[in-house]
Amino acid sequence: MKASNMTTSQSKSLSKLIYPFSVAIIGASANKKKIGYEIYKNIKKFKGHIYLVNSKGGNIGGNKIYSSIISIKDEIDLAIIAIPATYVIDVIEECGKKGVKAAVIITAGFSETGNESTEQELLAVAKQYGVRIVGPNSVGIANNDITMNGTFIMDSKKGHISFISQSGALGAAIVYKTIYENIGFSKFISLGNMVDINFCDMVEYLATDNDTKSIALYIEGIKNGKRFIKIAKRCSLKKPIIALKSGKSNSGSRAAASHTGSMAGDDDIYEAAFRQAGILRADTIDDLIDWANVFSLNKTTGNRVAILTNAGGPGILAADECEKQGLIVAKLSKETSEKLKKILPPYASTNNPIDTIAQAGYEEYIKSLKILQEDTMIDAILAVVVVPNFTNIGMTVHARALVDGWDKEKTLITCFMSGEIATASMRYMAANDIPCYPSPERAAKALGALWSYSRWYNEHKNKDTDIPNRN
Amino acid sequence: MKASNMTTSQSKSLSKLIYPFSVAIIGASANKKKIGYEIYKNIKKFKGHIYLVNSKGGNIGGNKIYSSIISIKDEIDLAIIAIPATYVIDVIEECGKKGVKAAVIITAGFSETGNESTEQELLAVAKQYGVRIVGPNSVGIANNDITMNGTFIMDSKKGHISFISQSGALGAAIVYKTIYENIGFSKFISLGNMVDINFCDMVEYLATDNDTKSIALYIEGIKNGKRFIKIAKRCSLKKPIIALKSGKSNSGSRAAASHTGSMAGDDDIYEAAFRQAGILRADTIDDLIDWANVFSLNKTTGNRVAILTNAGGPGILAADECEKQGLIVAKLSKETSEKLKKILPPYASTNNPIDTIAQAGYEEYIKSLKILQEDTMIDAILAVVVVPNFTNIGMTVHARALVDGWDKEKTLITCFMSGEIATASMRYMAANDIPCYPSPERAAKALGALWSYSRWYNEHKNKDTDIPNRN
Repeated sequence: MKASNMTTSQSKSLSKLIYPFSVAIIGASANKKKIGYEIYKNIKKFKGHIYLVNSKGGNIGGNKIYSSIISIKDEIDLAIIAIPATYVIDVIEECGKKGVKAAVIITAGFSETGNESTEQELLAVAKQYGVRIVGPNSVGIANNDITMNGTFIMDSKKGHISFISQSGALGAAIVYKTIYENIGFSKFISLGNMVDINFCDMVEYLATDNDTKSIALYIEGIKNGKRFIKIAKRCSLKKPIIALKSGKSNSGSRAAASHTGSMAGDDDIYEAAFRQAGILRADTIDDLIDWANVFSLNKTTGNRVAILTNAGGPGILAADECEKQGLIVAKLSKETSEKLKKILPPYASTNNPIDTIAQAGYEEYIKSLKILQEDTMIDAILAVVVVPNFTNIGMTVHARALVDGWDKEKTLITCFMSGEIATASMRYMAANDIPCYPSPERAAKALGALWSYSRWYNEHKNKDTDIPNRN
Repeated sequence: MKASNMTTSQSKSLSKLIYPFSVAIIGASANKKKIGYEIYKNIKKFKGHIYLVNSKGGNIGGNKIYSSIISIKDEIDLAIIAIPATYVIDVIEECGKKGVKAAVIITAGFSETGNESTEQELLAVAKQYGVRIVGPNSVGIANNDITMNGTFIMDSKKGHISFISQSGALGAAIVYKTIYENIGFSKFISLGNMVDINFCDMVEYLATDNDTKSIALYIEGIKNGKRFIKIAKRCSLKKPIIALKSGKSNSGSRAAASHTGSMAGDDDIYEAAFRQAGILRADTIDDLIDWANVFSLNKTTGNRVAILTNAGGPGILAADECEKQGLIVAKLSKETSEKLKKILPPYASTNNPIDTIAQAGYEEYIKSLKILQEDTMIDAILAVVVVPNFTNIGMTVHARALVDGWDKEKTLITCFMSGEIATASMRYMAANDIPCYPSPERAAKALGALWSYSRWYNEHKNKDTDIPNRN
């Protein structure tokens, strides 16, 4: 795939940013109270070349610290900068002279504290030398595809969501939440003040990234809205984009304006523009991640759903939410219903939702899946499992059956309820790229998002010949 | 408080059900594969008298097993029955003869499997002897106020929500979820087939229970709707009632009818009736528990909210959700704003949301709370904290400050974001009866529910003189 509309040199700089072979940590420190220590600690696992830089020199754990980036002989792809604000411009100039094409500036104290002029000066220097900048005021960037955590926050789990956040703290909070929920990221990019690299650049770059299945955005305000929507519309055809745009309300919009310096803008305009561009608009943090995660299936879907559950109540809640999402809880054919009756326990319900009752085990789930997968009147299977407490030693037979019995053709979304005792099953789903949720409503909502994207995709897939269609 | 409309003998039977001094486990078993073993294992911690009964006799771990309840000399308040369906009626008759006034029937295989006539026969026998019945097909009942887990599911955490579920499996899944989320229950009652004791009985009983602060209901269908609404309307004045009623959709409603045997009924009728009775209608499992938990504050609230946060993004999301819920993100007075400016770091935002920025610590939070609590134009404080990863050894200074600085007068709702590293802080909030949520949206929604209840309460508190007002 080619990175349409991006010049080759732009695309190359972003490659060096996201897939560097060599990284310099400028401001690396052995002092555990410094951010430069946190970044050093996190980047250590990176398999590329790591260079530590600090004007004080010395070493950390036997690793040499260079006194400046200039004194490094080898080529440096990416500089991650965590030094006091007053030195940042000089260091960017040094990076430019050294031929570094990409830098992440962690340092704060620029436009977000009213220091607009220094930030513009920084940009001018960066442009002069052709250095692309993430930040300032970023918590860093991470690429789990190459085991690079260039942030001062904890490692996220490896997966296929690429997450771009305008707020560093919220970005961190979301990463920590996904660790807890066993959801994985490919890239995490904290954009900070966006003096240079912004949503447009990153969405365009990630649209052609092989390790990314969906792109999640946390947005407070976008400066060049028209350009963003134009790019997003093209990129949505390759990678589904899910956005949480805050500042919907009056007070929230005022706060966003003061927090990021950019106008949050009229929410109706965002709403319409997002719809036009095929961007799924999340209402909450949970939606943002839940919906991004549904694309781990890497496919579009139809809307005729079969709900397969081992407990009546959760099945009903799933059906309620499916209909609310515009999905059809399909009436099962007589044939399918009778096939199910033959293999399920006597008091199971073979209408839809299909309630296998608690007694059904591995074999019943394998067979049920097979019957539902053979039914051409069903597009998607939503499996809702209440994990019984007797299973608290590991994952349930249902989890094993869903992985073993899935044909990978039919859409399969799962829900494993029961807090901690569901964890092993949820992890197993994640390891097999099957979207999994802790409640039937969240599972049904995510399936709704997948269906909503699928409709948009089918309407638009043949209209734009600029880029290859999504497989 | 008197249990209005309930006869004294009814109320007494329910006391024996929920606050028994002596419990007989009929079907107790040393066989770890039996439900009778799970119940024995769970009830062991109960400080009242426990009697084990099984027609086979013998003992479990040195504890005598009586061959029948008749052979026990002491008085038995409550019988929990987990024996094959064919013997249940005989055992209820024995319970009646023995003078037992309450029984929980775990055994399944009655109306839920089409065996309607046996269930009616069972009811007739119970009525003849004045034995009140929970079930059949119940997972049991628990009362954490007296450390009694009379179910075959895990111990829930101790707290002040009383939860009544028509679905056993969903009830269990919700209990497990609350263990994970550090939310506590006073009572958990799995109603099963509701041959005798139903939502009306339990709501009426719990409305006068001192250990209960709110009542959460999972409902699939109610048989005597008018009576329920009449009772709920009175009881809502004493204890807020939150209900998740499934079967909203066409397919869900059909499934509910088949699952519980009762018609789910026209959803609009439920919606209107709930509103009339002051019942907060939850849309999801998360809502049900989140909203029930907001009443751990044990107070009503006004709608003028101050949002206090250490991170801009989450503050904006909280503001957005507050306005969506009909709450007012109050414009701060010049005085309050200036007081905050004096004590917060230079780049903090002293508009509402108040963004203390990450640097603010214990002292700044104590002082901010004090300033906001003194402002008579603010009814509620919503504190939204992103837990920094450096704190992963325990709870944050923010958590300590919120507990130490809270005057217990102003409404205080909290959110601690960041997955597992927020757990210690969340537990500390729960231990201090301060509602706490993992996302700003869920926190704001819960505050919205509290405000919605408060409006209803204020409108109705003087209209019904039948019962004392809520304190």
